[in-house]
Amino acid sequence: MGTLKFKLTIAYDGTAYHGWQSQKSGRGVQDKCEAALAILFPSHPKLESSSRTDTGVHALGMVAHFEIPAVELKMPLRHLILAVNACLPRDVRVVSVEEADPEFHARFDALGKQYRYHVWNHVSGNPLLANQAWHVAGDLDLIAMRSACASLVGRLDFRSLTANRGDVLEDSIRTVSRCEIKKTGPSITFIIEGEGFLYKMCRGIVGTLVQIGQGKCSDDIETILNAKDRRSAGMTAPAHGLVLQKVFYPETEALRKSGGPTEDEG
Amino acid sequence: MGTLKFKLTIAYDGTAYHGWQSQKSGRGVQDKCEAALAILFPSHPKLESSSRTDTGVHALGMVAHFEIPAVELKMPLRHLILAVNACLPRDVRVVSVEEADPEFHARFDALGKQYRYHVWNHVSGNPLLANQAWHVAGDLDLIAMRSACASLVGRLDFRSLTANRGDVLEDSIRTVSRCEIKKTGPSITFIIEGEGFLYKMCRGIVGTLVQIGQGKCSDDIETILNAKDRRSAGMTAPAHGLVLQKVFYPETEALRKSGGPTEDEG
Repeated sequence: MGTLKFKLTIAYDGTAYHGWQSQKSGRGVQDKCEAALAILFPSHPKLESSSRTDTGVHALGMVAHFEIPAVELKMPLRHLILAVNACLPRDVRVVSVEEADPEFHARFDALGKQYRYHVWNHVSGNPLLANQAWHVAGDLDLIAMRSACASLVGRLDFRSLTANRGDVLEDSIRTVSRCEIKKTGPSITFIIEGEGFLYKMCRGIVGTLVQIGQGKCSDDIETILNAKDRRSAGMTAPAHGLVLQKVFYPETEALRKSGGPTEDEG
Repeated sequence: MGTLKFKLTIAYDGTAYHGWQSQKSGRGVQDKCEAALAILFPSHPKLESSSRTDTGVHALGMVAHFEIPAVELKMPLRHLILAVNACLPRDVRVVSVEEADPEFHARFDALGKQYRYHVWNHVSGNPLLANQAWHVAGDLDLIAMRSACASLVGRLDFRSLTANRGDVLEDSIRTVSRCEIKKTGPSITFIIEGEGFLYKMCRGIVGTLVQIGQGKCSDDIETILNAKDRRSAGMTAPAHGLVLQKVFYPETEALRKSGGPTEDEG
């Protein structure tokens, strides 16, 4: 009983940060979270996260865990979330804190993730979404885009849709289980779920889908994927439209009951 | 045919502004819009708006008109919107420009307005809505709040729900035609429509409804309204949750067809 493990769900506006991961500059969201924990716990716990996000990308459901010696917990769990948030900048919030099983691991136990990408499709940008939606003026062919979405679902080689990191990419096969577009007036949301994602893969998917909608992609998705070459696909959509919406774990259903954000109509 | 009149629909993030109306400080949204028009039109047209908004309040559908000598229009209408937006700060956008009837008046012709107020009802704030939703932690009794909403619809004396401006309020009877609450998980939206509103009336309504939901209001809406005294009601909700969503005109249906934001599912 010497150690306690906690699972955090974290939301952040990524605009001011150099992504999730700790940076020498201290401008990673992880740096801000670990600094908050260091105020509360003398052992200065480090976070293990489910994933990373790039500069400017947002999160509503980032998950990370940390461990502390049991003696360091001086307050009930329902106070801990308030204490951590009191130590965080306003653009980073802990959404839930739960005591986790000793074997829980935020990255290894994740079954998959859901990303959402927001596009504002109107002649004028939406000032209330300036940092949270990609402004795309001009008509989009939703039928063509939705047809392309269907071709992205499955266990496929996504080499054509990942950004080149300069290193050799050995395994570029990933399973996308959901790729949908919801539209309400000028607001278009891409919902992409999968077990795991390659570097900038979601943004490559969205950039390509939008260019298909604009009639700027001469090839269809099958041809693009078969090329196994980034140059065959469309652009990488800008970071600020992307949100890490949630991370799925085996116990997700139980977690929902404990009060995290849900989409139930009330 | 010496004069042309234009109807503008304007969206803005009110966070950085001292409300809509022109200020000596130049920090009214109207100042920014008139400065943009002055770049394009030598006659430096002034705007007549449908309404005002307070410091920190946002708009997606503010309407205003202006007139220019016909000789000053040097471009097609579809270019004018791009030209005006190029002259505006990023947090203010013209959403549509239409040539208006010579008799059109943004304020006198308005049939009514819709405001929306956003509450984030969760133990932790939502960093993506930090400037756009009132963070209310703790449970809210939606049934009690919706019941109170129903009592606010009608031609009623709203003296108890308007902030005191220090002057004598002669006529405080207004017609509220819609007062509804939509809830999706922690996101709660109040939709309030009416012919006209008293000073800070929407925020008085929302603050009172939230306090009813928190069990902090001992009186019901009928008792509060009958008191005709601001002290009988709940708090004034903070400005940053409020959005002037749209202004209704006799020709609104036709305008929708011309491409302004709609809520159609696509």
